[in-house]
Amino acid sequence: MNITNLSSYRVHNIVNSESVNMKENFAWLHRGVVEVFPQPTDADSESESLEKRLLTTNRPLRIKLGIDPTGADIHLGHSIPVRKLRAFQDAGHTAVLIIGDFTARIGDPTGKSEVRRQLTQADVARNAQTYLDQVRPILDFDTPGRLEVRYNSEWLSQLNLGKILELLSTMTVGQMLAKEGFAERYKKENPIFLHEFLYPLMQGYDSVAVEADVELGGTDQKFNIAVGRDLQRHFGQKPQFGLLLPILIGTDGVQKMSKSLNNYVGLSEHPAQKYQKLQGIPDNLLSQYFELLTDLPLDTLPANPRDRQMLLAWEVVRQYDGETAASQAKDAAKSGGKEGAVPEFSLAGVSEFPVKLAYLLNLTGLCKSTGEGKRKIQEGGVRLDGDRITDVDTIFQGENELHGRVLQVGKNKFVRLVL
Amino acid sequence: MNITNLSSYRVHNIVNSESVNMKENFAWLHRGVVEVFPQPTDADSESESLEKRLLTTNRPLRIKLGIDPTGADIHLGHSIPVRKLRAFQDAGHTAVLIIGDFTARIGDPTGKSEVRRQLTQADVARNAQTYLDQVRPILDFDTPGRLEVRYNSEWLSQLNLGKILELLSTMTVGQMLAKEGFAERYKKENPIFLHEFLYPLMQGYDSVAVEADVELGGTDQKFNIAVGRDLQRHFGQKPQFGLLLPILIGTDGVQKMSKSLNNYVGLSEHPAQKYQKLQGIPDNLLSQYFELLTDLPLDTLPANPRDRQMLLAWEVVRQYDGETAASQAKDAAKSGGKEGAVPEFSLAGVSEFPVKLAYLLNLTGLCKSTGEGKRKIQEGGVRLDGDRITDVDTIFQGENELHGRVLQVGKNKFVRLVL
Repeated sequence: MNITNLSSYRVHNIVNSESVNMKENFAWLHRGVVEVFPQPTDADSESESLEKRLLTTNRPLRIKLGIDPTGADIHLGHSIPVRKLRAFQDAGHTAVLIIGDFTARIGDPTGKSEVRRQLTQADVARNAQTYLDQVRPILDFDTPGRLEVRYNSEWLSQLNLGKILELLSTMTVGQMLAKEGFAERYKKENPIFLHEFLYPLMQGYDSVAVEADVELGGTDQKFNIAVGRDLQRHFGQKPQFGLLLPILIGTDGVQKMSKSLNNYVGLSEHPAQKYQKLQGIPDNLLSQYFELLTDLPLDTLPANPRDRQMLLAWEVVRQYDGETAASQAKDAAKSGGKEGAVPEFSLAGVSEFPVKLAYLLNLTGLCKSTGEGKRKIQEGGVRLDGDRITDVDTIFQGENELHGRVLQVGKNKFVRLVL
Repeated sequence: MNITNLSSYRVHNIVNSESVNMKENFAWLHRGVVEVFPQPTDADSESESLEKRLLTTNRPLRIKLGIDPTGADIHLGHSIPVRKLRAFQDAGHTAVLIIGDFTARIGDPTGKSEVRRQLTQADVARNAQTYLDQVRPILDFDTPGRLEVRYNSEWLSQLNLGKILELLSTMTVGQMLAKEGFAERYKKENPIFLHEFLYPLMQGYDSVAVEADVELGGTDQKFNIAVGRDLQRHFGQKPQFGLLLPILIGTDGVQKMSKSLNNYVGLSEHPAQKYQKLQGIPDNLLSQYFELLTDLPLDTLPANPRDRQMLLAWEVVRQYDGETAASQAKDAAKSGGKEGAVPEFSLAGVSEFPVKLAYLLNLTGLCKSTGEGKRKIQEGGVRLDGDRITDVDTIFQGENELHGRVLQVGKNKFVRLVL
C-alpha cells in the first residue's frame, strides 16, 4: 500500500452541483458529526435543512468557531471542530474564528473551584497567536475570503447597560437553570454566580456580531449555540445551524483527552512523540480516530490492526509536520529506537541541581547562552513535552523531574532529557 | 386649642449634643420607623449603631432616597420616606434624592403582566420635575448642602460589560431567588427574565455612586437596600444603614394607599379635597397617620376623635398648601358645603358629548381658548382629580364620567364638575 497517495480525499466545491445525490454530496459535512440542529420538521413547511441552506445560498456561508484563549497549547481533541471548519472552507465557505479575548481578559472572578488568574491583554494576544500557529496546518489561511479571525472584544467591549439588559431580557431564569451544569449545581445548592448567566449570552451575541450561518462546537456546546440562535432571531437575523462534534477519547481509551490526564497528543509535540503515542492507541479507538482526525476513506483501511495503527500515526503526523517528518518518525519507531528521532541529552551533564531552565537551555545547546534561553522563554518559544513555559525563573529540583521529557525551542529544536 | 401653634415640633441639629440621653435625642429618627438595619451585635465589637454613626461622623451623612420617575403624581403614601428625609436634613444631614431616569427610560421590555411603555428622555425629565414640584413643600430645598438631586443615568449609562460582570459576580442565583417576589414566581413557574436580576444591582450601585450612609425605603425595599450594602463593601466603602418605613394604609382603612384603589390623598389635590378625605378617615388609622404624616407630639392629641380627625386634616393641608388654605378648607368643610372651597361648573353648560378636554377647559373658563387648553395639556399642567392628563386628544363620552370630579390647571385654578 502506497500511503503517500492517501493524502487528499476531500470533496471540493460541491455547493453548486445540485444535480448530484444530496447524501453523497454531503459526506464531508456529516463525517464524524453527532448532531446537526435544527432538523427540518414536517410540521413547519418553512423549515430548511442545513444541506438546503448550503445549496441555495448565493454566497459563502459564515461558519463560526469560538476559541477560548486562556490556555496556549492544544491537542488532537481540540482539532476536531477545526478540521470540520477546514472541510467547510474547502467547500467554498468562510471560516470565522472568534478569539474570546474579552471573556478571557475579564477572567472569572468567582470561579467555582479555583480562582482563575486574570489574563493581561498581552497574555491573550500571545495565546491567540500560539493557537493560530498550531491550527495553521489544519486551516486554509491563504485562499482569499476563506478565513476571518475576529476578537470578540471588538463588539463586547462596546456593549452598554441598555444593550446588556436587552440581551438578558431574552431569557428566563428557568431556561438558564435548565442548562446542563447549572441544573446540577442549583440542585446541589452549589453557588451559581449571576455573571455566569451572561457567558452563554455573550457567546450567543458573538453569533449576532459575525452573522453566523453555522456554529461548530462540541456536544457540550448545544445550549450556548441555541442561545446564539435565539439572539440572532431577536436581532432580526436568520438563526444559525448548530453542528455538534464528539468529545475525543484520550490515548488511554477511557477518559476524554486532556492535558491533566496525560492521555493527550499535542499538536506541537515532536513528530516522533506524536507517532509514538498514536501507534499505540487501543483498538477500540481506531475507527473514531480515523473518522475524526483524518480524511481517509473508512471502507478501504488496512485489515491488520497493526497496519491501521501505523497508518493513523503516519497520516496524523503528516498533517501537522509533513510527509518527510511522518516517514522519519515511522522509520525511527520501526528501528526500535523508541526515541530515535529526537537527539538525547544526558542529565549527567548538569553539574548541580536545582537548575534554572534558562541555564539548562544553554547546557543542552538548544540556546547559545543562558541569556538567549531567558529571551526564548519570555518570547513563549520554549516547551517541555509540548507545554509552553513562560516563567523565566522556572527551576527544576532534580533529574527525576526531567528524565524522559522532551525540551523544545521554537518549531524545530528538540532534545530528549535522559538520565 | 390653638392649632396654629402646632406646626414646628421638629428637633433640630442634635448631631453634636452627645451629652443628652441618646434615646431622647433620636426621637425624630425612630418616629414611625419599622426597622433600622443592621443592628449592632454583641458578637461583633466593631459593629456600630446608626445612632453612633450619626454622633461620631464629622460631616453631614448622606441619606439616599431613590425615586422611580415612571409616574408623575404622588400621594401621602409616597410622602413618608420624603418626610423622614426632611427630618435628616433638619438634623444637619444631606438628602440625596436619586431620580431613576436610566431604568425608567429603558423600561421593562418583558414586564410580567403588562407591557410598560418605554419612556422618552423628555417624559422622564417632565415626571422628575413634577415629582420635585410636589415634594418641594416637604424638603428643604434652600439651605446650602442639604439637598442633592442626582439622575442615575449619570453613572449607569457609563457601565460597560466588564463592570456589569463584576456587579453580577457579587451575588448568586440562590440569593437573588430568595428575594420576595422572585421566590413565589419561581415556585409557581412564572417566568422571571434575567434582566430583572440586574435591577436590584443597579439600585444597589446607586448607593456606591453617591456613597450613601443611610438609605430610606418602604419595608418592601429591604432586599434592595441590603444589595446596596454588599456592593458598597465590594467597592471598599463603609456599608449604608437601611431605614425601613411602613406602607401607608389608604383612606378606606383596609388596603395600602394606591391610585388604582381610589383610597388615596394626592399631594396635588385641591386643599379642600385633601381636607375632605382626611377628616373622614377611619379611627383605626388616626394614630398611624399622625405618626407618619405629621410632626405633632402624639401624647397631646385631642381626646375627641372628631377633633383628632380635623386636626390631622388641617395639619396635612397646612404642610402642602399653607395655613391660610388649611383654615379655608376647614371653614368650608364646617359650613357644611362638602365641596365649598372649589367653585363648581355645571355640566349642563356642555352642549354636546363626547367633548374634548381642551374644549372643556375653555368652557369652564380655566383656559381662555381651546388652543390654550391644548397647550396647557401638552405642558403637563392639567389634572383631573389630581391626575395629570397629557394626551391632547383626551375625550369624555358623557356627564357621568365627569360628575363630582375636580378639573385643575396649574397650581391654583380648579373647578368641580357637577351635573
